[in-house]
Amino acid sequence: MTQPSGTRRADAERNRERILAVARDAFATGEAAISMAEISRRAGVGMATLYRNFPGRRELLEALYTDEVEGVIAAAATVEGNSPGARFGAWLRRFLAFSAGKRHVAHELLASVEGAGALLDDNRARVLAAGGALLTAAQASHEVRDDLTLEQILDMIIAIARIQGGAAYVEPILATALAGLRPAT
Amino acid sequence: MTQPSGTRRADAERNRERILAVARDAFATGEAAISMAEISRRAGVGMATLYRNFPGRRELLEALYTDEVEGVIAAAATVEGNSPGARFGAWLRRFLAFSAGKRHVAHELLASVEGAGALLDDNRARVLAAGGALLTAAQASHEVRDDLTLEQILDMIIAIARIQGGAAYVEPILATALAGLRPAT
Repeated sequence: MTQPSGTRRADAERNRERILAVARDAFATGEAAISMAEISRRAGVGMATLYRNFPGRRELLEALYTDEVEGVIAAAATVEGNSPGARFGAWLRRFLAFSAGKRHVAHELLASVEGAGALLDDNRARVLAAGGALLTAAQASHEVRDDLTLEQILDMIIAIARIQGGAAYVEPILATALAGLRPAT
Repeated sequence: MTQPSGTRRADAERNRERILAVARDAFATGEAAISMAEISRRAGVGMATLYRNFPGRRELLEALYTDEVEGVIAAAATVEGNSPGARFGAWLRRFLAFSAGKRHVAHELLASVEGAGALLDDNRARVLAAGGALLTAAQASHEVRDDLTLEQILDMIIAIARIQGGAAYVEPILATALAGLRPAT
């Protein structure tokens, strides 16, 4: 049986997305030790399909991580808000979600994959480049204090993302940090 | 040769302080693996004196940690400032110094001492009790927002204390977080 190649590509893309979604959920909820067999079961794809997409755990982790980074970088161009400061704040919230979610993936990557440090560093540089324009605009409109670099601001967000306690516990802490970014009046 | 017992007590106290100071410096600069012999050498006291004061590494670590906690708790009563908000801010800075310095000690304690978790939890509760009055006063004078508990505020400070990069790098981040504690105007 043959299918039109467009349909085959769409199926392949759907399988890949389904695998990544299962793996992302598993890592986000702390199941860092999930097996490839369990991922294939939950995604409803055969092992052959899983391994065709991701020859090993390493490739799956890298794809997951890169996907998340691309999302953060893309958000820098599309994030909405009524002012440069509001857009920068919205992007920092997106970055926090990324930092909180990626933790297990990044940890696994660093622990298990040779050369992962370089991958993380490269992506860090790309995220800094993407957010830099948002920060510059927010500082130019006097909505964000100018005694911090983007690196310092992101380190603050990453630190907050690591606080244990769930979204309701962390939200007022994040709101405090974002409020503190306003220049002193 | 006999000495007046007051002098002997003063000598003993000086030795104890010297040992703790050496151990504190070593841990603060990341020398978590420093040996008891090296501590005795740097403190200029014999091994017999060292072990009379601290029968083992565990006792030394516990004494170091408890000393630091007592300092933070005492500071809640003596910290200076022109207003309740300024006093609370000054105490949070003191707490940050404690959090940054105690990291290695607490890590060693947790890794090596049975039941250390309970010691850390007890001290956490005492620190929360000591700082609670300062926060309440600062909120009553409308200098600190009232949507965070002291626990959330201290978790924020601890998170900032963990950021790598030295005092000059971390200071604007701390200033941002403290500025964010002011109520929205």
